[in-house]
Amino acid sequence: MKNIAIVYHSGFGNTDQVAHALERGAQTKGIDVERLILTGEQIQAGRWADDSITEKLNAAHAIVFGAPTYMGMVSGIFKCFADATAPHWMSHSWQDKLAGGFTTSSHPSGDKLMTLHYLVTLAAQLRMVWLGPTAQASHMTGSSEGIDQWGYYIGVGALGTVQPSIGSQPTSGDLLTAEKYGQRIAQATLRWNK
Amino acid sequence: MKNIAIVYHSGFGNTDQVAHALERGAQTKGIDVERLILTGEQIQAGRWADDSITEKLNAAHAIVFGAPTYMGMVSGIFKCFADATAPHWMSHSWQDKLAGGFTTSSHPSGDKLMTLHYLVTLAAQLRMVWLGPTAQASHMTGSSEGIDQWGYYIGVGALGTVQPSIGSQPTSGDLLTAEKYGQRIAQATLRWNK
Amino acid sequence: MKNIAIVYHSGFGNTDQVAHALERGAQTKGIDVERLILTGEQIQAGRWADDSITEKLNAAHAIVFGAPTYMGMVSGIFKCFADATAPHWMSHSWQDKLAGGFTTSSHPSGDKLMTLHYLVTLAAQLRMVWLGPTAQASHMTGSSEGIDQWGYYIGVGALGTVQPSIGSQPTSGDLLTAEKYGQRIAQATLRWNK
Amino acid sequence: MKNIAIVYHSGFGNTDQVAHALERGAQTKGIDVERLILTGEQIQAGRWADDSITEKLNAAHAIVFGAPTYMGMVSGIFKCFADATAPHWMSHSWQDKLAGGFTTSSHPSGDKLMTLHYLVTLAAQLRMVWLGPTAQASHMTGSSEGIDQWGYYIGVGALGTVQPSIGSQPTSGDLLTAEKYGQRIAQATLRWNK
Repeated sequence: MKNIAIVYHSGFGNTDQVAHALERGAQTKGIDVERLILTGEQIQAGRWADDSITEKLNAAHAIVFGAPTYMGMVSGIFKCFADATAPHWMSHSWQDKLAGGFTTSSHPSGDKLMTLHYLVTLAAQLRMVWLGPTAQASHMTGSSEGIDQWGYYIGVGALGTVQPSIGSQPTSGDLLTAEKYGQRIAQATLRWNK
Repeated sequence: MKNIAIVYHSGFGNTDQVAHALERGAQTKGIDVERLILTGEQIQAGRWADDSITEKLNAAHAIVFGAPTYMGMVSGIFKCFADATAPHWMSHSWQDKLAGGFTTSSHPSGDKLMTLHYLVTLAAQLRMVWLGPTAQASHMTGSSEGIDQWGYYIGVGALGTVQPSIGSQPTSGDLLTAEKYGQRIAQATLRWNK
Repeated sequence: MKNIAIVYHSGFGNTDQVAHALERGAQTKGIDVERLILTGEQIQAGRWADDSITEKLNAAHAIVFGAPTYMGMVSGIFKCFADATAPHWMSHSWQDKLAGGFTTSSHPSGDKLMTLHYLVTLAAQLRMVWLGPTAQASHMTGSSEGIDQWGYYIGVGALGTVQPSIGSQPTSGDLLTAEKYGQRIAQATLRWNK
Repeated sequence: MKNIAIVYHSGFGNTDQVAHALERGAQTKGIDVERLILTGEQIQAGRWADDSITEKLNAAHAIVFGAPTYMGMVSGIFKCFADATAPHWMSHSWQDKLAGGFTTSSHPSGDKLMTLHYLVTLAAQLRMVWLGPTAQASHMTGSSEGIDQWGYYIGVGALGTVQPSIGSQPTSGDLLTAEKYGQRIAQATLRWNK
């Protein structure tokens, strides 16, 4: 059995929906997938700690990082968690785990690429191997289901909102993109750990 | 009279439309604005050179850089031009000029933020002062005219396409965003060079 | 009188040294400069709040942001502060303030450029105007005093360490770079607000 | 037999030295490694084309991208090559190939991280899987051989100069870092393609 951990913070529930879609996609024979939720209560004086989450991350074959984009970057709560991975940078104990990432914000761009660039940088410091989402059938004409409609490649960048009046978000295309990304990560985890 | 130069490459005409909108916005009393177009013919064996353009940039009080985003970054033609600004990096002869930037691609994200991060980095190497677009009335509800609809802040990120069937692009909101950016750059040029 | 605020988090004292050097450089006739220190104690359940600091930032003509680079990005403590600037993104009440930034880490690169790219993105979301450090005499031969020795352009990237045995850090060249940056920000604040 | 292609542009020979070190590291049983050199002569009116190089890249199981950092980004010559990979973005024919990257510039930072962020973005658009350099024994105390001395994680960032008087560059530590990166890419290519 190979383990995939999805570790994320969600502020208003949008990032949580993307995490669930990823989880659905990753569920397959030979794969055990778990969502691990970061909260402000895990932080004391700016330092994040949660032994149960850390143990599960240590045991994972693949880790998918997720956070809302607040003011152009992962939320402060996620960043406090990221700071707490420094011992794994020093010991390189996470080297060769697979990594992926996702984020949400209230605009199609909303500087979410900055967050994805950060997540890939965090994974590189931890010597992990980065995997982005699957390609859809055609980049130019787009998918009738709205998969990959915004043009993110490093990870999933979904629309999220705090205003229910704007309509259901993330869009169904965003959630399908995340689900297919989960499938890809599960397949790669099995292939890389044969 | 203060001079604003808009120096850009356009592949399929989308970036050119944004440049024209910026020019319209920048036209005001006391400001002389000019568009300077980069082409493949100005490049020999990977080296860009065009004395007339370089002289005009040297004389400008503000320079706005523009390029399509190809494969996640300014086009190769623009990059050959950027390489040729190295003498100004060494002599810091462009220090304190104002700078801004814009880009287009076929998806709302399309990794255009990477291009804008590059343009601000190029300007920083040249010791220029960076100015992004104006804020619209309300970020959360959005503008009825589609100004700033995608959520770009460092510069203008507009939609562009090579497929006329998809509809008119850049959108009217993109062009208005660029026009208002041109106004802001003109006002800042006058304020900074009083 | 024009106000410059240096708002920063320092973990082991390196970032604090850079902030002091910036402050020294910025002290000039007509300029009031103040350092505002971010701490973990200002954060409750992942949310940063400190009314006194916020009021001073609201009154500043220029804001210089500083943080150590932890795991490839501003520290979690700084990021919690950045999240709390969201009301200024929405109201664009900080539009046209000048901005700058600095960071420290234990390696010459250490992914500090990622932090500087983030600070410029944060400032752009707040519609501020970005100013990088001054150029030294010659980029190619370098400065005998070690100014700008690493090749950072968007802001100051200084060496910092938690191991006193490695030698005094930030280096004297880093502190001189920061001092000259402070001078540049002070001069620009006076020029922009004439 | 699995194929690794190292495709790069070198301006003054520094990037070429890193490419040779990578090649040495990658040479192992079961791996065929080849260096493919990009030149200005392969570019006509801003468009790069070289059928022989493209065919070899199509056949490769892993591609390592390399370029000098000029003005904060891959050289114009490399970018013209990157533009020409657009058909593989559209067809996603390079999906699941392994990818890595390296760059050189005349300063320890020199905005080389921007180049590495670009190379990882290019690879993500092509749906490739990204692998950074190996960890050294200890991040904090450093390697006695100068491996990973600058603190780059996404790829190799080496020192390069056009001034022989400054001393031999890239440093021996840079070349060892590249050689170990080559080993890691070779091992990962065998593991991923079992």
